[in-house]
Amino acid sequence: MKKLIKAGMLGIGNVGRGTYQTLEMNRQKIYETTGLDIEIVKILNRSPEKDRGIYVPPEKYTQNVDDILNDPEIDIVIELIGGIEPATEYMARALSNGKSVVTANKAALAANGSKLAKIAQDNHVLLRFEAAVAGGIPILTSLTTALLSNRFTEVHGILNGTTNYILTQMSENGTPYEEVLRDAQAKGFAEADPTADVEGFDAANKLSILMSLVFGIGAGPDIIPTVGITSVGQEDIRYASENGYRIKLLASAKEENGKVYGNVEPALVPVSHPLASVGNEFNAVFVSGNAVDNLMFYGRGAGPLPTGSAVLGDVIGIARNLEKNSAYDLVPQLRFDSELEYAGEGSNKYYIRMMVPERAGVLGKIASMFGDYGISIEVMQQKAPYEVNGEAAASIIFIVYEVEKSKLIEALDAIRKEGVILSIDNIMKVE
Amino acid sequence: MKKLIKAGMLGIGNVGRGTYQTLEMNRQKIYETTGLDIEIVKILNRSPEKDRGIYVPPEKYTQNVDDILNDPEIDIVIELIGGIEPATEYMARALSNGKSVVTANKAALAANGSKLAKIAQDNHVLLRFEAAVAGGIPILTSLTTALLSNRFTEVHGILNGTTNYILTQMSENGTPYEEVLRDAQAKGFAEADPTADVEGFDAANKLSILMSLVFGIGAGPDIIPTVGITSVGQEDIRYASENGYRIKLLASAKEENGKVYGNVEPALVPVSHPLASVGNEFNAVFVSGNAVDNLMFYGRGAGPLPTGSAVLGDVIGIARNLEKNSAYDLVPQLRFDSELEYAGEGSNKYYIRMMVPERAGVLGKIASMFGDYGISIEVMQQKAPYEVNGEAAASIIFIVYEVEKSKLIEALDAIRKEGVILSIDNIMKVE
Repeated sequence: MKKLIKAGMLGIGNVGRGTYQTLEMNRQKIYETTGLDIEIVKILNRSPEKDRGIYVPPEKYTQNVDDILNDPEIDIVIELIGGIEPATEYMARALSNGKSVVTANKAALAANGSKLAKIAQDNHVLLRFEAAVAGGIPILTSLTTALLSNRFTEVHGILNGTTNYILTQMSENGTPYEEVLRDAQAKGFAEADPTADVEGFDAANKLSILMSLVFGIGAGPDIIPTVGITSVGQEDIRYASENGYRIKLLASAKEENGKVYGNVEPALVPVSHPLASVGNEFNAVFVSGNAVDNLMFYGRGAGPLPTGSAVLGDVIGIARNLEKNSAYDLVPQLRFDSELEYAGEGSNKYYIRMMVPERAGVLGKIASMFGDYGISIEVMQQKAPYEVNGEAAASIIFIVYEVEKSKLIEALDAIRKEGVILSIDNIMKVE
Repeated sequence: MKKLIKAGMLGIGNVGRGTYQTLEMNRQKIYETTGLDIEIVKILNRSPEKDRGIYVPPEKYTQNVDDILNDPEIDIVIELIGGIEPATEYMARALSNGKSVVTANKAALAANGSKLAKIAQDNHVLLRFEAAVAGGIPILTSLTTALLSNRFTEVHGILNGTTNYILTQMSENGTPYEEVLRDAQAKGFAEADPTADVEGFDAANKLSILMSLVFGIGAGPDIIPTVGITSVGQEDIRYASENGYRIKLLASAKEENGKVYGNVEPALVPVSHPLASVGNEFNAVFVSGNAVDNLMFYGRGAGPLPTGSAVLGDVIGIARNLEKNSAYDLVPQLRFDSELEYAGEGSNKYYIRMMVPERAGVLGKIASMFGDYGISIEVMQQKAPYEVNGEAAASIIFIVYEVEKSKLIEALDAIRKEGVILSIDNIMKVE
């Protein structure tokens, strides 16, 4: 029952190379365990003169995307160009031409997933994208197959390896942010322009996709409150540690009473929580379902081979059903039709770090004003006095019980107007 | 495209109840996300008078298995009786009758998986068993779908919640084994007869299944070297902790040069390893593939609802393809056809705890005899003197570099014959 499956690949950057290499390494093993012989027969390569670090027979390269999108022998198109356009247009054309599509492109999916899923369904082909969230970790496959019998209540992800590497190094070695960032860039964990990573935009794209799979809602990265890691200082890391927490950039969403709350933000995670021990460039996704309870998936969220593993897993899954896609397998993984409603960031426990003048009555005033706004204090901790503009000052943190962020900001604004604080230096969610 | 799928269930103990409850809770959600309406229409219940703690319409119960195995309306049989027989016979009959089978029965699969997989394939139906290994954790689905593009190099599992609970409590609270076991029995984490758990037999069944999926080999639990946790003492836990390890009952297998080595044994796991922080009744599976690198899956390995989640995930997976099972989906998950060969326990680092007389020259003698056998010592640690039979004695541990266990035993026998040791109190693998 040997069957040759022909795939075309758009782009041969890091992930494309990893996908091609993984297939070269394991083509025989895949054939032995599935009966499927998969070949990448054509590759869109706009810079064929560039050294890709692997051997690809030159006749596989084309500079014309139509050679792949219009080739009747190609059943599966692997889109690895990245970016929203022209990737979206190419995927739409492939799907319309009756080809299933595998992509690692979180930006295009977060922007146009709904449109692409519809085209796939109309054309009775599949759109798969395991590699788009958490790289090699099989989280999307698990959510949409083995865990499908659950109603999910929450999902929390460390979805960006660059920021997790930076926070881990800052935390373990006390290295300042700028220095770790330079080191991460040198090691290839951070890009020359690190904005998309360190500002949380990459994680927001992935959270948008996860929320669609887990809760069936469409919340684009443009409406997901997103805070990056640039405001996290050594002082925050020390305070967190002293109170039993580690700081992680979390992409989180939870369902409560028909509403879905979710955002991307550096958060204090209790050291006993499985996510707290996910270090360096590793990713993890923690998910709770009403039957399965708590699960965590841990692994490499990036890198050519781990991402290639996920891309090829999707290719194999599609290839297995190419002869006749079951109508029930054609149900899109991306869903936007649930009755749940996205409602922003919601209520959380928060950590606030501020500087206050070293004066009698200041703490009492702040505490009582929090009280006026119905905000209860769990932890208050003051550090040895500093000097700010010639005045004795103290660094103080509060951890306050569940409150809406807008209400917290309102209270802090009022406290600021009373003149009892010098500065508010950071606000972070506490899990 | 709504479709009603009728399933029959054999047995309604803990897992059966959890499966039924999960479907009751989430039937609507499953329908909304897949278009499949699944109903458990008949249940084999040999003690209908027994209170199952849930409401099941009495007309669903039957005491005659033929009512399910021979019902042409039933497409999927869920086997949750447990034990090797009559479960194997019932599954074989269901498969022969053209029904797909979902089971949580690790003992029957470890004993008869090869036979059952063959019957399934001959009859063009599916045999699925996600719930048989690590309960709600979707490890088998991941290995056989999203991760299929990898050649796996190793797998390590904490696959038994009872023993992990006992070891965690012994370690965190210093509670003696017997007391924790009684506590675990009271909490429902351990059975009245805990043999299958504490002696490692349950974990060996699961390892046998994992090795078939990961390496394609058939190594039954009867040939897997298996050591339980009853020999683990507080002294071992302390020594391990002082040297940066936690003790976990690990089911492990690795591939080296065409041979697969694997066993079940309490092992010293470095505290920095993700498996070290898996506490109490939780399970975890750590797996390495040649593309995806290291992954860990963490969650509940037992309990009615988590196991029910896995059972229903398999039911949904089968139901999606009922109209026409793709030939490539019919490839059995259990494989016994690879060219790899099972070769027992292999070489490992080992921890050895012994009592020696407090006499000059004893340590030198032991160390040099290890050397004679080509065994290198990494750690040697001696504790405050004891008195054994009126003689001053010391407790000593060694951690030795990779050696075959048989060679280690040979060396220890020789050392024992020299009269320089009073007793060998424990030997454990070091990961």
